[in-house]
Amino acid sequence: MTRVHVTGAAGYAAAEAIRLLHAHPLVEVGVLESRSHAGEEAADHFPLLRNTPYRFDSPGSVAAAVHWGDVVITAGDAQESRASVPGLLAQGARAIDLSAAFRDDDGVAYGLCEWQRDAIAPAQLVANPGCYPTATLLALLPLASIGRPRHIVVDAKSGITGAGRTPQTGSLFAEVNGEIRAYGLSGHRHQPEIERYLRAGGIGVPLTFTPHVVPVSRGMLADAYAIFDDPVDGGAVEAAFRRAYASSPFVRVLEGARVPSVAAVAGTNDAEIRVDVAGPVVRVICAIDNLGKGAAGQAVQNLNLMLGFPEESGLSDRVAVV
Amino acid sequence: MTRVHVTGAAGYAAAEAIRLLHAHPLVEVGVLESRSHAGEEAADHFPLLRNTPYRFDSPGSVAAAVHWGDVVITAGDAQESRASVPGLLAQGARAIDLSAAFRDDDGVAYGLCEWQRDAIAPAQLVANPGCYPTATLLALLPLASIGRPRHIVVDAKSGITGAGRTPQTGSLFAEVNGEIRAYGLSGHRHQPEIERYLRAGGIGVPLTFTPHVVPVSRGMLADAYAIFDDPVDGGAVEAAFRRAYASSPFVRVLEGARVPSVAAVAGTNDAEIRVDVAGPVVRVICAIDNLGKGAAGQAVQNLNLMLGFPEESGLSDRVAVV
Amino acid sequence: MTRVHVTGAAGYAAAEAIRLLHAHPLVEVGVLESRSHAGEEAADHFPLLRNTPYRFDSPGSVAAAVHWGDVVITAGDAQESRASVPGLLAQGARAIDLSAAFRDDDGVAYGLCEWQRDAIAPAQLVANPGCYPTATLLALLPLASIGRPRHIVVDAKSGITGAGRTPQTGSLFAEVNGEIRAYGLSGHRHQPEIERYLRAGGIGVPLTFTPHVVPVSRGMLADAYAIFDDPVDGGAVEAAFRRAYASSPFVRVLEGARVPSVAAVAGTNDAEIRVDVAGPVVRVICAIDNLGKGAAGQAVQNLNLMLGFPEESGLSDRVAVV
Amino acid sequence: MTRVHVTGAAGYAAAEAIRLLHAHPLVEVGVLESRSHAGEEAADHFPLLRNTPYRFDSPGSVAAAVHWGDVVITAGDAQESRASVPGLLAQGARAIDLSAAFRDDDGVAYGLCEWQRDAIAPAQLVANPGCYPTATLLALLPLASIGRPRHIVVDAKSGITGAGRTPQTGSLFAEVNGEIRAYGLSGHRHQPEIERYLRAGGIGVPLTFTPHVVPVSRGMLADAYAIFDDPVDGGAVEAAFRRAYASSPFVRVLEGARVPSVAAVAGTNDAEIRVDVAGPVVRVICAIDNLGKGAAGQAVQNLNLMLGFPEESGLSDRVAVV
Repeated sequence: MTRVHVTGAAGYAAAEAIRLLHAHPLVEVGVLESRSHAGEEAADHFPLLRNTPYRFDSPGSVAAAVHWGDVVITAGDAQESRASVPGLLAQGARAIDLSAAFRDDDGVAYGLCEWQRDAIAPAQLVANPGCYPTATLLALLPLASIGRPRHIVVDAKSGITGAGRTPQTGSLFAEVNGEIRAYGLSGHRHQPEIERYLRAGGIGVPLTFTPHVVPVSRGMLADAYAIFDDPVDGGAVEAAFRRAYASSPFVRVLEGARVPSVAAVAGTNDAEIRVDVAGPVVRVICAIDNLGKGAAGQAVQNLNLMLGFPEESGLSDRVAVV
Repeated sequence: MTRVHVTGAAGYAAAEAIRLLHAHPLVEVGVLESRSHAGEEAADHFPLLRNTPYRFDSPGSVAAAVHWGDVVITAGDAQESRASVPGLLAQGARAIDLSAAFRDDDGVAYGLCEWQRDAIAPAQLVANPGCYPTATLLALLPLASIGRPRHIVVDAKSGITGAGRTPQTGSLFAEVNGEIRAYGLSGHRHQPEIERYLRAGGIGVPLTFTPHVVPVSRGMLADAYAIFDDPVDGGAVEAAFRRAYASSPFVRVLEGARVPSVAAVAGTNDAEIRVDVAGPVVRVICAIDNLGKGAAGQAVQNLNLMLGFPEESGLSDRVAVV
Repeated sequence: MTRVHVTGAAGYAAAEAIRLLHAHPLVEVGVLESRSHAGEEAADHFPLLRNTPYRFDSPGSVAAAVHWGDVVITAGDAQESRASVPGLLAQGARAIDLSAAFRDDDGVAYGLCEWQRDAIAPAQLVANPGCYPTATLLALLPLASIGRPRHIVVDAKSGITGAGRTPQTGSLFAEVNGEIRAYGLSGHRHQPEIERYLRAGGIGVPLTFTPHVVPVSRGMLADAYAIFDDPVDGGAVEAAFRRAYASSPFVRVLEGARVPSVAAVAGTNDAEIRVDVAGPVVRVICAIDNLGKGAAGQAVQNLNLMLGFPEESGLSDRVAVV
Repeated sequence: MTRVHVTGAAGYAAAEAIRLLHAHPLVEVGVLESRSHAGEEAADHFPLLRNTPYRFDSPGSVAAAVHWGDVVITAGDAQESRASVPGLLAQGARAIDLSAAFRDDDGVAYGLCEWQRDAIAPAQLVANPGCYPTATLLALLPLASIGRPRHIVVDAKSGITGAGRTPQTGSLFAEVNGEIRAYGLSGHRHQPEIERYLRAGGIGVPLTFTPHVVPVSRGMLADAYAIFDDPVDGGAVEAAFRRAYASSPFVRVLEGARVPSVAAVAGTNDAEIRVDVAGPVVRVICAIDNLGKGAAGQAVQNLNLMLGFPEESGLSDRVAVV
């Protein structure tokens, strides 16, 4: 069984990754390393890890333990990843990096599974996409075959775990509860990532991107509006989406009365997509779990692709978030 | 003191109106009429009315009690308003109708206070705007002087009280908590109202409107994106907003790091607006309380305009929603 | 594979049971019957069932389909259970009833698994305990060996799914959000069930029971305070709890800094218990998921006992509720 | 107009005090001093202060500005109060201290208004009670005339603002949402305060006190259970409560179907109390807003008593928390 280690292991996405790895039938949880929580038990900090036996080790523990062929999920910040990943690769490990450190690097596989399977499978280093880029790119990339929109507007709503577990005033319950607010109005750090991979997918179009926080722990809804110059053929659009995700077990293209639901994807690696065309405007709504398909779930999906496992290994259980 | 009656008095917006009227220094609460709660005490049904002495009367009570010069806030559904308002007007009362019954009628004053003061002041019947139209029109009407956008996208997020107090599965705590979802994808009932008054304001432009429910009791955030053909002059846009709301005590045009906040307007009649221009796109974000400026607060503001009171009478208190 | 049918299948507990049965490796989901949702797809009503293929059938469908040896989980109200269960048993099915219909019947196995394994295993009909009784009895039954308290106080807090999915004002998001309130002050329907099985367990003591609703979808915390006449031996109490649950995989007796957490048990069949002794007072805190160990999880655990499966079959997956 | 200054002014209770003082008709807001937020605008940090003009000044500003006859609300921690209050008093100011610094001091007035009016009115220093003690003492002190209970159990549930605004993991939205948990199991810092003032009120009885956090921003419900040796006369108990609070405008003793509601008191200085007697057990449930009657509201009530104002000055407005 392949051993999978985690660094930066005491964050929300890392904990979700540990939960998934713990239940994964084909891998073994290795060393979990945390600077902030070294020596402490995961069960004491994460309700979802309450009945797991893991303890966080101190920085350097993964580097000391890693063997050729192991996989490391690096879940700390970009600076930590830049410092640690080259060494881990040099030791013969493969890495899935959850930070933004390598997402701009040309030689690195971009881990948007549904669109990059061939690059991911043999990669030694996979840059796991951000949650906003994941939702947005899943919503927009199928449009490449339709033509060039004049402008794209993306209005995204995220659960607060996207802001991380480091205590800050803006993430306190009493600040988030009852609130709906936009942020990053003068430019969100994820916008360049979105634009880069839209462009790579053939959609080099001006983009207006507005992220929002709403009082939800985990989950993300991205509404993408592509405004074309001329009326768009609805049938062609729908066909493009069906084709794009025909062999993707985690993406559900909805129709009829069914609407993307954050509650329906929370705790899963699923994405729900709904596309509606009205004249020159294509509206695509995509729901994911920011910690699932937007982070840890996609990391495990990448792991499966890298190791030649069935894509759904360890990811198919239905989980309970009312 | 003018007597103000309320019909359909056991809904969320009606209860908020009663709360405001109770504290209003220049009016007197008259008869409160409710079909569903006749004979019951308001204090038993609404925490916000806990220390008020009111009891709901049965249907017909307002018609029996109304005198020339009284005002009636009709807060039931449109069908009830169509049935009752003509008679009330014939009795010499003035009416502020919270339903959609009269919003399309040419002879009726549309109660969007900041833009219709002259029509509202002498009106016998005021059609109080819907919450989505209020937020959207406050965000977009100042753009009339800027030119004609090619397309407008409005992505709005609402608290669940907008769905009313009649029990339905979709409004249950366990269905709303943890959820973010769009609805009305094939056409929301408020879209024609928005388009009509945009057109009347000189903005006859194709509109894509998408409402969402988020886990908030009261509050609304509308993100409006106007896509022009050519780059827009940011200074002119900001000046247009400053000019439009210079003498409007309830509208705050924010700048700098300050972003519209639902928490900051909840429990008030305030609106917060923020406008950003990037190339050919103008983004305007507007926060209101759907029960405040989006319903009962605006109704009381209309009342003040109709009765010649200072516009802020009974509306200036800061209220507490963390 | 044993077929398991569900009646009253469109409630919260039923949906959770369907979720668990769908993933259960040793049983097959049979007919799902719902009066209110006949003909509709489960995926359209329950986010947790989004990727299941089930459709609700009309009343009578289970009776028509059931074979000798099938199991039926009856999840409608007590009146429905009284009407349908005798017939199902006569057809040779076994039943696990989630209502209160049979909990007082002497010949029926009471499905509090940890305390009734021998009675449950051979039973044709199991009366699944209520959520409040489950949490309370797990907290108190180990005290039987300690002596007779003078009085017991139980202060319980429940998620709102305990009130069911039938729309009612008191369960609306806007009524529950921001609220903490006691209810059933003049006698809760679960109190006699608690007293009956405390007495059966040797604790026939006056009980004060106060249930509360808090703004949580699923989960329950019961604080039980047993007031004795004389100081209690803390070591003996702790030993009694360890002994009581030594072979119970779903009950965790916590110590040290670890405190029962609703978040840690939500989405599971687990119970967390913490006991503290101070002088003559024993405080026991028990956390369960009202839909898990308090309803559907325990029903599946009963199913496992009845069918001779390992007790944890289909119940061991860690699920995600942040 | 008396000037009222605030130190430690950037916490939740302080902000609520500023909101109340801003609207108070008989006082003037003086200097607001904050170590953490010096130089920043209150409107940028607190939604409830959005339309106030205040800026936080640096430490020492209040001491520099204070005049004889001013009042200072000291809302920092106990250490800060011990360092600053003696100097402020020496300058001739009067102080209302929100910390625990002086609550044990014999010469200091304990600011539980309904029970200490005579001591508060002339005091130079008032120790404002904690939120848990306020709810508990209001619930229990009327029982002094009934006799001596054998034991008292207090099970209290608090909104998370009680934990303060300093960022900490346990107060993050994602940690509080969906959670119900007890804390302080080995002794809560408020227990000695409760016991001291129960004893002073003639109820020197062993107490078991268990505080809980639930997913609410502001509000507190305390369930107090007094277990007597013999059956208690319900009529005498109810009469004792009526008598105790007959002239207290902020305390509502409920009866009939009405139950204390956190939503009904949130944003107010009100307390709702409900008492039920069953045999030898008296259960008293008390709801307050932990930031209102449990902190800032009571501070303003103390201010009114100290300055000879009507007790309700600045506190009578109904506020909006759905």
